[in-house]
This record gives sequence, structure tokens and C-alpha cells, in this order.
Amino acid sequence: MDQMIQTSEISVGVVGLGLMGSSIVAALLLAGHPVKAIAPLPTELADAPERILNQIKHGKEADLLTKSPEAYINQLTVSGDYSILSDCQLVLECVTERPAIKQTVYQKIADVVSTNAVIASNTSAIPISQLQQYVPNPERFLGIHWAEPAYMTRFMEITCGTLTSLERANWVFELAHYWKKEPTLLRKDIRGFVTNRLMYAIYREAFHLVETGAASMDDVDKAFRYDAGSWITMMGIFRRMDYTGLQDYPEIFRRIFPLLSNSDNVPELMRPLVDKQLRGTQSEQGLYDYTAEEAKEWDHAFAVFNKDIFQLAARYPFRTDRRIG
Amino acid sequence: MDQMIQTSEISVGVVGLGLMGSSIVAALLLAGHPVKAIAPLPTELADAPERILNQIKHGKEADLLTKSPEAYINQLTVSGDYSILSDCQLVLECVTERPAIKQTVYQKIADVVSTNAVIASNTSAIPISQLQQYVPNPERFLGIHWAEPAYMTRFMEITCGTLTSLERANWVFELAHYWKKEPTLLRKDIRGFVTNRLMYAIYREAFHLVETGAASMDDVDKAFRYDAGSWITMMGIFRRMDYTGLQDYPEIFRRIFPLLSNSDNVPELMRPLVDKQLRGTQSEQGLYDYTAEEAKEWDHAFAVFNKDIFQLAARYPFRTDRRIG
Repeated sequence: MDQMIQTSEISVGVVGLGLMGSSIVAALLLAGHPVKAIAPLPTELADAPERILNQIKHGKEADLLTKSPEAYINQLTVSGDYSILSDCQLVLECVTERPAIKQTVYQKIADVVSTNAVIASNTSAIPISQLQQYVPNPERFLGIHWAEPAYMTRFMEITCGTLTSLERANWVFELAHYWKKEPTLLRKDIRGFVTNRLMYAIYREAFHLVETGAASMDDVDKAFRYDAGSWITMMGIFRRMDYTGLQDYPEIFRRIFPLLSNSDNVPELMRPLVDKQLRGTQSEQGLYDYTAEEAKEWDHAFAVFNKDIFQLAARYPFRTDRRIG
Repeated sequence: MDQMIQTSEISVGVVGLGLMGSSIVAALLLAGHPVKAIAPLPTELADAPERILNQIKHGKEADLLTKSPEAYINQLTVSGDYSILSDCQLVLECVTERPAIKQTVYQKIADVVSTNAVIASNTSAIPISQLQQYVPNPERFLGIHWAEPAYMTRFMEITCGTLTSLERANWVFELAHYWKKEPTLLRKDIRGFVTNRLMYAIYREAFHLVETGAASMDDVDKAFRYDAGSWITMMGIFRRMDYTGLQDYPEIFRRIFPLLSNSDNVPELMRPLVDKQLRGTQSEQGLYDYTAEEAKEWDHAFAVFNKDIFQLAARYPFRTDRRIG
């Protein structure tokens, strides 16, 4: 970050005010941006301001505020009319994961903003290079992948499509530091991005262990919570290898890689869940079952945990960008 | 846990007082056991008591003590003579990962303890069913896999060999709760145990992403620290799927599983590290490089992080053992 950026001088637009969109609005307001938010659905238009205010109050509990919640909300404009986006230098699309709908949204955005304005999608399912085809001046389009809650997580993946200008991507990368993120910039548009690829490698093996009777779901959850969970927030993957001395890994890789699942198929265990359209804690039934009270308790507990782990992570701000070669 | 166990009435033996062995001694002392520790190496015999006292003092910072450090140390006997193990109901072997050495140790233990005494190995490399062959009355032998530091992590894998008595394994499983563990009991002796299998699935994919140029090591570390790290300690794998609503997974599994690495080979990136015998933070060079000061800082920071994440995890003691089917 060679030059200081004044976030108060950069208007940011957000289209789509569902769970993720409103949480992103809260993050941008807390970072000091004036925010222009488009609610394509009437229900979102009615609910959004209060939901965003509550999220900002949640941020207050984690000491993220330097002004009153209302002072942040005053910087927010919510509308169904895209013309409020006209002065935005960046517009984030957070609508449903259907390409046809996104295409319409990009056209509406492009109609009102400058040709230099960056347009970004929060998609985690559709390739950026595909969505880019729907955007006039596609070099200013890229992926910005947030984690929930957007105002209280440090994760962010910025993904280029094949046509994205690296200069524009770098600008977003710098800006993301003002949003208190630890962003990664992916120059290559890989399917599933980095974090999903790693997670799906775990999911594949986890289902394999359960399906072969080696372990229960509960065993897998416990082992991962209390082993990986005890260092991951501080170290990540490669740094962990360095910390544990490196020497044993090649031999263990040689022995264990051939035992890992290489399946391409959706695990059998998922079939009854799909057939019954179970939704986990949201429907009180999933891989585990829940009482109504337990499901609610999970929601509350995760909000508290978020705050705790966010604050903990902030105490270990190790740079991980020095490396050999 | 139907009946209360009085840990003060159960003597536990530990053979091998290296880094892991002495940390296990500290855990057992803090849990209230009288501990008989065998130091096969003269250097360990000299150093161990002070190292264990320091670990107990580290535990004090995390509020794990109800008495003075010295009161715990008074329950410890350290010797080179195996006969002090005679009244132990459980003996933990923590010597080097060489089967021939372990075989000698098991014979020496079996010569002095009752035939009912449980003998356990902390191995993470050698199959329990193999080691079991070296133990007289092999039904009382099993694996107890600890994480470092043993007195300040909740992780524990208890692994049966093919000949292990499930009744004996269940006794250890119950006892482990008195050590403040969240143990998993693996009835099947799988290579790599649960946590290693999951981690090696990640390592394989992480190297694949770096080797194909999709991401840098730094990208991988950041993404995993700040995404997975923001929920893993609370949720684990399957519970996370439930919490995020389940419905999108089958489609994403179908798309992403075929893209994951299925390699059996040690990643090319590891070769120069192996050739140069680099040891990560211990040699100040590894996947990343370190100044002497940085390497030291990592050690200190991890000790502090351990305490922090241990206390955080304790605030989210969700049972994960209710499930469908």
C-alpha cells in the first residue's frame, strides 16, 4: 500500500441485500465508505436497513466501531433504483447464483456507472471468466469472495477472470486491507477457488472414513475441531509443516496419499438428505438432528464465536508472504 | 461416565520423557494421577523434572491448576528403573518411532505390571495391530494419540488394534474425560488415524494448487487460516455442512471432486527441502525462510496461542454425538 486510500471518498455499490449482501454493506460502512445499496426484492428493501443496523451493533461488541452505529448508517442509501449507483467506483453483485439473473444485473449496473468502475461478483459457484462475458468492458470485472459475517471475518478471495485487468485487481486487493481483510489475489480463475478446493478435499476424505466404518461423523468432527482447530487460525497449511520440522512429511505422504479417497462421486450418505431436502440446522434435520432449541442455540453461539475468533486472530497477524524462491 | 473415577487412586506410568512424554506427564499430573515416569535416556532423566515443572507453570497461566505447581510435582516419581511401574493400571509408551525399541520397552513394562494393566503407545506412525504383536496379553494394548502440548489440547485419538479388548478401550475413553480431553475411539486400526487422513487430503490438494500455479503458498495459508479458521474450532466438518444449510453440497461435490488431486506421489516442491534436510522453523529454512529472531518468535507465539485457543474452545463445549440413523 504505497498511497493512502481515503475510503470516505470512494462510494461503493452493493446489489442484492440478502444475508450476505447486507453483511457486506455493514463491512463497507464500517470501513468508512458511503454505500449505495440496491434491493431488487421488495422484502429486502423493507428489512435491510434494520438488519444492517443490527450487524453494525454486533460489530460494536467486537470493538470495530469508532463512531456511533447511527453515524455509519447515515452513510447508507438503500433503493430499488439503480441510478443511485452512478458515482460508485466499485459495485458488488450479491444476487442469487443464476447466470441469467446476474447478466441482467450487470447490464443495469453498467448502464449507470462509469466505464472505469469495477464490477465484482460474490459468487462462489460460477466461474468468473463465464460471468465476465456478460459485462460491458469486461476488464473491470472480477470476483470478490467474502466469508460470513463479512464485517467480522478476515478472509477474502479476489479472483481474476481471463479478461480481468491486473491493475484493477490490485486496486481491489489494496482496498481490501482497509476493510480489515487478509486478502488473497488469484490470478487464475480456478474452479472452487482456493479455500473450497481445500475444503472439498477434506469433505471427500471425511465421507470416505465414515462410509468405510473407520470413524463416525462425531469422531471426524471432534478430531478436526480439537486437532486442526488448535493451530489453524495461527498457521495455515504450509507454515504448519515448517513449524513441525518438515522431516517426517515425505515418508508419510508416500504411505498415506495412496490410501486417500480419489472418488469423483457424491457420497452415498448424502442421498437421503438430498431426497428429503433436509437443510441442517435450518430445518432441524441434516447429517445430525436438532431440537428447535438446539438449532437456535447454534445460531447464537456462532455469532459469539465469530466475535471471539476474530479478536483472537487479530492478535496473531503474522505475515506469511516471505518464502524461498 | 456412569461411575466417578478417582484419578488419585490410579497410578499411571509414562516411558520416554522427550518433548511429548514430559508434556503427557504434565497432563496426567494436572488430572490428579500419581505418575511414575521412566527416562530411558540419562539426559532425559536429568532434565525432565524441571521441564515438567515449567509445563505445569504454563498450565497455571491458563487457569488449569487448583493447587500449587509443587503439589502436582510431588505426585511424580522419575527413574530409570522400570520396577517403579509395578502398581500402574495404565502405562503410556512415548519412545522413538522404531518398532524394535518399542518391543523391548513393552517387554520391560509387562515384566513388572499386572496382566490387567493397560499398555498404550503414543505412536502416530506405526499401526497399533503391528505393535500389539510385541505385547504379552495383547488385548490390553491400544493407541493413545495426544496432541502437543498434551496438557493444553483437547484432542485425543484412542485406537484399537485387531486384538484390543473394547472394554479396556472404553475404560481409557472414560478416563480421558478426566484429562479434559474430547476423545475419539477408533474401533478400527486405520493407517494415519482420522485427523492425519483429513490433513493429508488437504496437503495433497494444497501442493497441487501451488504446483499448478493456481495459488501461492501464502494464498493457501491465508485462505485456510481466515476461512476454515473462522469456524473449525466450533464446528468440525459435518456440523459445518449442517450449519450452512446442506443443499448446495451435492452439486458442488459433483463439480469439484473430479478436479481434486488424486496423486500418490510426494510433491515435487518437497524434493529440495528433503535434499537439503531443511527443518522449517527449527533450522530457519523450510517452505518459508526465517530469521533466527522470527523462528524464536513463532515458538513463543504458539505457546501463547495454545493457551488462547484452548480457553476459547472450552467456551463451546457442544456435544456432537447426536445424529440420525
